[in-house]
This record gives sequence, structure tokens and C-alpha cells, in this order.
Amino acid sequence: MSQESSGRPAGDLSKTGMSLKHDREWDYELDRIVDAVEERDAETVGLQFPEGLKRRGPGVADDLRGSLPEDVSVLISGQPCYGACDLDTYLMKRTDVFVHFGHSPMKESEKIIYVPLFSNVDVFPILERALDEELAEPADDDVGLVTTAQHMNKFEEMREFLEDRGYTVHTRRGDERLTHEGQVLGCNYASAEVDADQVLYVGGGKFHPLGLAMEHPEKRVVIADPVNNAVSVADTEKFMKQRYAAVHKAMDAETWGVIFCTKIGQGRWEKAEEIVENNGDAYLITMDEITPDRLRNFGMDAYVNTGCPRITTDDGPQFHAPMLTPGEYEIAVGEKPLDELSFDTFQGTW
Amino acid sequence: MSQESSGRPAGDLSKTGMSLKHDREWDYELDRIVDAVEERDAETVGLQFPEGLKRRGPGVADDLRGSLPEDVSVLISGQPCYGACDLDTYLMKRTDVFVHFGHSPMKESEKIIYVPLFSNVDVFPILERALDEELAEPADDDVGLVTTAQHMNKFEEMREFLEDRGYTVHTRRGDERLTHEGQVLGCNYASAEVDADQVLYVGGGKFHPLGLAMEHPEKRVVIADPVNNAVSVADTEKFMKQRYAAVHKAMDAETWGVIFCTKIGQGRWEKAEEIVENNGDAYLITMDEITPDRLRNFGMDAYVNTGCPRITTDDGPQFHAPMLTPGEYEIAVGEKPLDELSFDTFQGTW
Repeated sequence: MSQESSGRPAGDLSKTGMSLKHDREWDYELDRIVDAVEERDAETVGLQFPEGLKRRGPGVADDLRGSLPEDVSVLISGQPCYGACDLDTYLMKRTDVFVHFGHSPMKESEKIIYVPLFSNVDVFPILERALDEELAEPADDDVGLVTTAQHMNKFEEMREFLEDRGYTVHTRRGDERLTHEGQVLGCNYASAEVDADQVLYVGGGKFHPLGLAMEHPEKRVVIADPVNNAVSVADTEKFMKQRYAAVHKAMDAETWGVIFCTKIGQGRWEKAEEIVENNGDAYLITMDEITPDRLRNFGMDAYVNTGCPRITTDDGPQFHAPMLTPGEYEIAVGEKPLDELSFDTFQGTW
Repeated sequence: MSQESSGRPAGDLSKTGMSLKHDREWDYELDRIVDAVEERDAETVGLQFPEGLKRRGPGVADDLRGSLPEDVSVLISGQPCYGACDLDTYLMKRTDVFVHFGHSPMKESEKIIYVPLFSNVDVFPILERALDEELAEPADDDVGLVTTAQHMNKFEEMREFLEDRGYTVHTRRGDERLTHEGQVLGCNYASAEVDADQVLYVGGGKFHPLGLAMEHPEKRVVIADPVNNAVSVADTEKFMKQRYAAVHKAMDAETWGVIFCTKIGQGRWEKAEEIVENNGDAYLITMDEITPDRLRNFGMDAYVNTGCPRITTDDGPQFHAPMLTPGEYEIAVGEKPLDELSFDTFQGTW
């Protein structure tokens, strides 16, 4: 759909997807926050934004200050934040109302107000293109549908859109880690376990559809990315090569750093402990943010990350030594055959 | 003193200072740790090392495992650590014995074992040179003596060394933040408030003597650096220019990020709160590690750091926007005249 044919004024790119990278409007649900402050007679409000929205922090704080009694203090979390698994527990414990923006609830709590910040990008033009270009024809009219928290508010409309065009849409809610039917996380694709050979993923980024395709190798994963206005089919080959390269490199390791992540929703203590107990060359390292700088100081030969899988697989190449998922570690030390390499997911709740 | 004239074999650089950068031996006081584990019937031991010694973590863990009952788990902190003000409280709370290496106690606690890791570098050759080259002659035979935690074990010997050569040595213990007489921290130079116009600083690095000279501008600060085998006089001019440049740049700021550091020994809540209460363009940001990456996401025009002054003054130029100390902030917003620029120190306990 070109700008002209949409009947909107020139320069109005608000529904093309492309422009919205720079021009999104979010609903910060300030009224809900103000109500909570009044109800709880709160003196302090903590705000936590994901990385891409931290820049909006001062504006949101300004608007809140304008609506709140003067003696209420607004504090902004400066901790990195990559999901609802990544709550700033320090700030949460020390404020009367704690608002987590941009993710759907992973753990319900009376203390936390989750403001999802649904995208207002129009997903339907790109759905149309995905249907035209990549989704299998009515001969195979079963399709799974998944999306990210950002687009969950359009989920039922997307389902109807597909049904109107003759598809049988299969959806499910994953496990307790997921709030919504059809929702995927970077570490959980349980909602794609549906009775369809093709799954339509609607959302931005490469990481989610890659994990999805790795976790469900028997399915064709069609990506409809409304943010970058692009349709494609997930291809795990390059990714698999990278992972195998890391596993092979780690096979020579004489020292292993086993990372237990201390973030509230990213800890897998049993996995970390099990590895260290069974490997005399493994050392347990506890930390919140897992960064190349932090690990470089330890200078170990290889690392196993039991925390967020995105760090391992997305940031992995930036580390000075190979960083593996727990499953990849088992392959590297010979406990599992090479061909059992799979994506690392968090199942169940935290 | 050349290697040859020392009468030691060629290649033995163990007392020249230079070689010891690569070849130090530390006393990790493993017996004391093992005793504590037995006494407390501990099941978990947490180890925290400063950045430069993290590489020794696995070796220390190995030695401990060899001496401890098999069911005792050893965990290593992966959090950055820059002082005794920077305890890994997560690991501390979750282990039965918590060992903090490399710094002297700031807060005594039954839970924490502080292992100071005194340097075994010979400080006397460089003291001799400092006397020859930079210390004022007997006409002014008063001298203050300060050093860092690393060399505290030689403090009384250093005092005697100076007294034997005719100096009247002035020392004092600073305030509660300091463990030892004559000790300085990067954020506290109270031990140099002595009745002498010259102060001899024995230790590595540029940051401590610079802070010392800023805090005591009326004194001549002679640096005897036994690690880099160098003698010099602290020169604050370049540093002051940098600070004034940051202050001037910040004068145009329309948005201010005011950082409250959540590290256990680095929080100055009142300072942070005061600034935010009196400036409608200031926003309170809470975080532990203060890094350029973390602040870039907020994109504010200027920052005030109420946490560790080393971050502000040493790392300052790496941030995308000027970062000021609380005192510098007052100058930038016109609350204090330009010529009152001074070093930022933590007084009193945390």
C-alpha cells in the first residue's frame, strides 16, 4: 500500500510500518499509575523501561509529576532491562508503586503495575503480503499464529483476518511463563506447539523467529515483520553454523565458567549446580548483567550461561571465549551427541 | 638500583617493582577461610575479587575445594568490584561465608571475611628515590605519609624509614570510612589532614594522588609509585581543565539525570534527592554500575553522579554527555562560584 493510495496526507507514514520506527506513540496508562498512587497513598513511584524506551523516561516522569501530589517522588531505574524476567528488584523493594513498562506480566504481584505498551503499528498490510508471498496455499490451510507482547492487542484481529481468508488458525497459550495466548518470548516458544506445519510469526527482530524455528524444526516459520515491513522465512542454517563453531571451540576448554544469573526471572540454579558438581574444571560465577567486559576479567577458556539464552546466542560472538547454552555444554563435553543441538528455552515459570 | 648491582641473578626482577606487575604473589589466607567454614558449618562460600584479581578466582577456588569438605560449594562473584564499598550483597546474603579480597574493611560484619591481599612489592627503593628527588630537604622536615590498602602492611616500616632519615612524620587515621592510620581511598583523603606542607603518597595509579592534591591544594603531594617504579609530584592542572570543560558544557543542559548509586557503600541519597527536589529539569535515576552504555539510552543533556567519584572524574570523558560531581553541579547551575571547584569525597561512613 503506497502512501498516495491510502488517501492520507503526504508525509503521513503512520501506517506504513517504516516510519513508526521513529514515530511511535505509546499509551503509558498514566491514569492507572496515578490511581494506584492515590489508592496506596504512595510516596515513591519507581519506573522501569526497556532499553529502547529509556529515552521516554523523563517525559513520562514529567507527565506523572504534573498529575501527582507534589510530595510524591518519581524514580527511574537505570538498570538494563530486557524483559519481564528482568525486574529491578532494588527499586521495586524501595518504592511504593513500581511500574514496569513494555512487557506483559511474568509474575503477578500487587506491587507491580505492568504497562504493556502495545505497538500502534498496523500489522495487516504485512500480513497480507505474508499470505501472498510465503504462506502455503489452501491445500495446507492450517496455520499457527504467534506474536510478541507488543502486538498482543491485535491478536484476535489477526486471527480473524486469517480465518476470513480461509485458514484454520491454530493457537495456544504456552506455559506459565507466558501471559497471553499466542505469545512468544525470546526464551519460550511453547505457544507454537500447535497442529500445523506452518507458523506465522508477527513481530520485529530476528531473534524470536530464529528461536521459534530452532525449537520447532519440523515447521515452516513465516515471518511478518510490521516494524521493518518485511516478509521472510526463518532460516536457521547460519545460526546453527555459529553455534556448532562455538561448541567445537569449547571442546578444548580446560576451564569452564558456569554462569548463574541473579536476575529475578533468569535463574536456573539446578542446571548451574549440576554442571559444577560434575566437572572439576568448572567454576560457578554469579552475576546479573552478563557482558563481555565482565567475563574477560576471569579469562576462562569457555563459559556456560544458564541465564538468558539471548545473551548466549545473540551476543555470544562478542565474548572473548565461546559461550554455550547448557545443552550445548553437554555436547561439548561429550555427554550428548553433536546432532542434538537445540535452542535453549526456559520452560515453566521462573 | 639496576638488576646487576642488586646481586640477584639476571632475570630476577622480584624487587624492582616493574616485574611485579606480572609476578605478584598474594596471601589469600586460605586457612582463615577454611577455619570460618568449619566454625560456621558452612555449606556455601562466596568469593569476591576486585577486577584485577578476578583471574585468580579459579585458582583460589581450586585450593579451597581441596581443603574443604566435598559438600561445600564455592561460588565466585561475577559482579564488578572496585572497593570495600562495593560488596556483592546478593552473593553475601546467599552464602554462609562471604570472602571479600583485596580491600580493607569498610563495614565490619560477622558474615564477611576481608582478605586484604597486601602487595609484596618492596616500597623502600622508591621511597629512597622520592627522598632524593622530590621531598623537601631538612629545612622543611615535616612530611605527611599516606598509602593505599595494598601497602598498609608496610606503613610502620615506611614511617621508621623516614624518621631514620631525619623527617618528622605526620600521620592520622581519617574518618570511619577508613580502616587504617595513613590509609587513603579514591573517595577519602581525610588521613592527609596533617600538619605538614608536603605529603608523601606511596602507591600505584594516578587517581589517588590526584584526589589527594585536589582535596589538599595547599600541600605538595609527592608520589612514590612502587608498582611502576616512578617518582613524581601530583599535578592537578590538566585534571582541573577537564573538570572545568565538563562544567561549562553542562551549563547549557536542559535535562539532568541525577544518579543515585545503589551499591551498598556508594549511596548518597540526600544529595541526590536535594538536587531533584530543587530542579524541575532533573530526573532521579537509580543504578548500580554506572556505565556509558547505560546512560546513553537515557540521552539526557548532563548527569550528576552522587555515587563513586572515580566514575565521574576518571571515566567521565567516556560518557556521551558531561557527568558532574554534586559540587560541580552546583557550579554549573549557578549556585556556587566557578572557583569553588573541588574534588568529590565521601566523608563519614556509608
